Amino acid sequence: MNTGALSLVKTAMCAGVEVCFANPGTTEMPIVIAIDRVPGMRVVLGLFEGVCTGAADGWARMTGRPAATLLHLGPGFANGIANLHNAKRARTPVVNWVGDHTVSHLAYDAPLTSDIAALTGSVGWTRTVKSAREMAEASLAAVKAAIGPPGRVASLIIPADCMWEPGPEPISAKLSPALPGTSVSSIQKAEHLLRNGRGGILLGGNALSGRGLKAAARVAATTDCKIWIETWPSRQECGRHLPSFPVLPYPPEQAIQTLAGITCLVLAGVREPVAFFSYPDQPSRLTPADVKLHMLADPDAGMDAALALEALAQGLDAPPACQPQRSRQAFTPNDQPLDPDTLCRVMTSFLPENAILVNEAATIGLAWNALYASQAAPHTLLFLTGGAIGQGLPNALGAALAYPDRRVIAFQADGSGLYTLQALWSMAREGANVTVVVCANRCYRVLQAELARASISKPGPKAQSLTDLTHPVLDWVALAKGFGVPACSVKTDSELAHALERALAEPGPNLVEAVLA
Amino acid sequence: MNTGALSLVKTAMCAGVEVCFANPGTTEMPIVIAIDRVPGMRVVLGLFEGVCTGAADGWARMTGRPAATLLHLGPGFANGIANLHNAKRARTPVVNWVGDHTVSHLAYDAPLTSDIAALTGSVGWTRTVKSAREMAEASLAAVKAAIGPPGRVASLIIPADCMWEPGPEPISAKLSPALPGTSVSSIQKAEHLLRNGRGGILLGGNALSGRGLKAAARVAATTDCKIWIETWPSRQECGRHLPSFPVLPYPPEQAIQTLAGITCLVLAGVREPVAFFSYPDQPSRLTPADVKLHMLADPDAGMDAALALEALAQGLDAPPACQPQRSRQAFTPNDQPLDPDTLCRVMTSFLPENAILVNEAATIGLAWNALYASQAAPHTLLFLTGGAIGQGLPNALGAALAYPDRRVIAFQADGSGLYTLQALWSMAREGANVTVVVCANRCYRVLQAELARASISKPGPKAQSLTDLTHPVLDWVALAKGFGVPACSVKTDSELAHALERALAEPGPNLVEAVLA
Repeated sequence: MNTGALSLVKTAMCAGVEVCFANPGTTEMPIVIAIDRVPGMRVVLGLFEGVCTGAADGWARMTGRPAATLLHLGPGFANGIANLHNAKRARTPVVNWVGDHTVSHLAYDAPLTSDIAALTGSVGWTRTVKSAREMAEASLAAVKAAIGPPGRVASLIIPADCMWEPGPEPISAKLSPALPGTSVSSIQKAEHLLRNGRGGILLGGNALSGRGLKAAARVAATTDCKIWIETWPSRQECGRHLPSFPVLPYPPEQAIQTLAGITCLVLAGVREPVAFFSYPDQPSRLTPADVKLHMLADPDAGMDAALALEALAQGLDAPPACQPQRSRQAFTPNDQPLDPDTLCRVMTSFLPENAILVNEAATIGLAWNALYASQAAPHTLLFLTGGAIGQGLPNALGAALAYPDRRVIAFQADGSGLYTLQALWSMAREGANVTVVVCANRCYRVLQAELARASISKPGPKAQSLTDLTHPVLDWVALAKGFGVPACSVKTDSELAHALERALAEPGPNLVEAVLA
Repeated sequence: MNTGALSLVKTAMCAGVEVCFANPGTTEMPIVIAIDRVPGMRVVLGLFEGVCTGAADGWARMTGRPAATLLHLGPGFANGIANLHNAKRARTPVVNWVGDHTVSHLAYDAPLTSDIAALTGSVGWTRTVKSAREMAEASLAAVKAAIGPPGRVASLIIPADCMWEPGPEPISAKLSPALPGTSVSSIQKAEHLLRNGRGGILLGGNALSGRGLKAAARVAATTDCKIWIETWPSRQECGRHLPSFPVLPYPPEQAIQTLAGITCLVLAGVREPVAFFSYPDQPSRLTPADVKLHMLADPDAGMDAALALEALAQGLDAPPACQPQRSRQAFTPNDQPLDPDTLCRVMTSFLPENAILVNEAATIGLAWNALYASQAAPHTLLFLTGGAIGQGLPNALGAALAYPDRRVIAFQADGSGLYTLQALWSMAREGANVTVVVCANRCYRVLQAELARASISKPGPKAQSLTDLTHPVLDWVALAKGFGVPACSVKTDSELAHALERALAEPGPNLVEAVLA
């Protein structure tokens, strides 16, 4: 029998969904059974919903194709919201299948009943299925919504009877993401602005692809404009082989200082830059009031920023880009205790060619993007987009399953890693080629900085306790072992170098706890 | 300077909030600083927001007084929703302080911006503070909303500037929960129904206190009515010293069979019983259509069900209750592999007098409530109320901090324990007297039962993989060690008896993994 669940799964698969990160419950069993019967639909169990949504985000960021999740009613979906928030900010195509009670049962307000649409609506497109007869059409609509442009989070709320009742024939429609182009007049306006002022370009979205970066370098060489990379890129190509540009700093004062002096700012795949947080006596906008902003490639329309930059370079008659000649900076370990700089330098030295670096290393991660990534071998960076911590380990899982031939490094702060550490188990189960490098500073350093900023140089014991992770010390080697991932702990540059060399050569997941002095 | 944050914290403390379970971020630093400056407001760091909300629920269930949480914008709050859903179903008084951007900054849609009110509104009362001037009044309003009656989840969304700007004088108003009484006519109607038919009483809320259970026993002895305990009690007094009643079964067919044959059902502190999930060809209502339902003490009005039962017993001229004479059933371990029955029998034998048993042991936990709890020493039970798994460990943390002189046992399924295992670290940090007993059946047993129910006797490899926790096996001893909690693993009744005897005698937290054969 073709159940509604089978119509849903078959239609989604035909439309381009080939993996489902799942944490199902009783209500979703018909979809579990349907997945079982559809060859080619991969299913990956997460022990916690935030693992599923973050893995779907990582998978879809790397492939550009939508990934699905399967979640259990309102509380199950709620557990996945934080990483869906990050996916929303990254404009990643993610399709959520969320089970609900039958419509007739909802009237009885059984214990698990809640307003699921209020939750799904907070992160994107949402639709509640009304009948099994619409399961194929609704499934296709969700994938369409997710693909965009722009990519988005799309959630289908599916009452249990719509899953188990007879469903329609699946729809055979293959969908492909498309990136709208920029108008000629918009490119000409950018040319005009950059030729007639102290210009800048802020790069985001697919302007951070190799193509986009090379085109930006050509534009900069011709117009003498400044180029910056957005602070929270969803995905970026990095390494010695590519032009290197400064990252717009995170502290608002520094960002304002950076952008001072320009007369126009061209936005390529990114919105106008604003402060991440609000502070007393600080503006939200980071650009001076008299700067002309020009949207060259609107990320909210999913526009092709790389193509726009290439058109801009061509319009400016810019010569071809020179291949950068940055050489590998060999690092000789010296039995020194690890500090953030040493840690990053060892990482730079050992990062394998063609790796995927999932960076949620908080304060150290910002420094990595700004100072070290351009010194490393060619690699792809995935970064925290929405500020909802707990993205890193699930993203790394998803990226590793999307590209089993590439090594994934989860460059992870200890504080944020603890939000979704259950991802380690799915890495072990799936044999994901992930090396987790935990930057163990054993505190919430960013909060200590914020307390200092609020002129609290000597926080009292309660404020102190809220930024401290040493009582007791977290043992990442034991945590990894608990989830079936081999691990070791290192304290010096030499130990880290040795551990990384070994870990990166081994198949499957492993973890290196880098304890900072 | 009296900041808005200080007005908030001082007012809440005066109104009866004395503990805050916190996972703050940058936005909430003014509240962190305020807590630092207010002696008597205890603050407990959770490494994940679901730990904070579940701990607040556990603390408030045990004390009857509201507990606070401090959470970081929309994604931080979202991470806490699952356990707030359970608190909502338990009608626990919980106050959430949720930071947000300043109003002027919200217009810029910075990365962490989201519709927080959509999330907070999904679990209860919600209000967004508009100015620092209203911080004291808003703080008091939130505590009032939380206290009820009935108890509820109350969330204040607090823009950062309302925290850091000068605030008003704190309000000195002490609030106490009150339980409205039942009308005389309602009690008389219950008398009439129970005297003139085959009656039943379903007990929930504070009808499950010692007073309520004793009064129910008197009513049963006089009227020959049947008494049942609701399937998902928020809190119940248990043990050999109290009257023992059957629990309304979880599977809807069994519940319907149990309730067949009665002509009226009196509801004491509980709503009409309905099926937990909807199934094909199964009704949502569990009582026959011709049964007269009578609400004696409405839980949604926070009514005093124990008092109503005492009035009912008095109205029926019921003689005083007899003290039950169930003797302790000594259990002699015999080096047998652990199965659910053996595990529960060892637990029954070793449960210390006056313990708090936080039961999230899923399939085994339902059996415990129905068959074993009444054989154990006097203890208090906290149970999963809303079906949002991950309640157990955080609840145990909160209960242990509320009653440091009582031993807390977290009777925990392995699957659900993994949702919020970060609670172990807070237990270690706070020296919480919790013994975690993990019932490690290494699968999602309830889902295997649901697959079988859907006539999938031989699930395929993908469906199978979604209910299996053995690839790789989770090592709870290592996980506990990682969070600083001493642990051991046992496989036989003798080993469990020995481990429990030792664990229950040690101060602070510990964990026993009971591996089921």
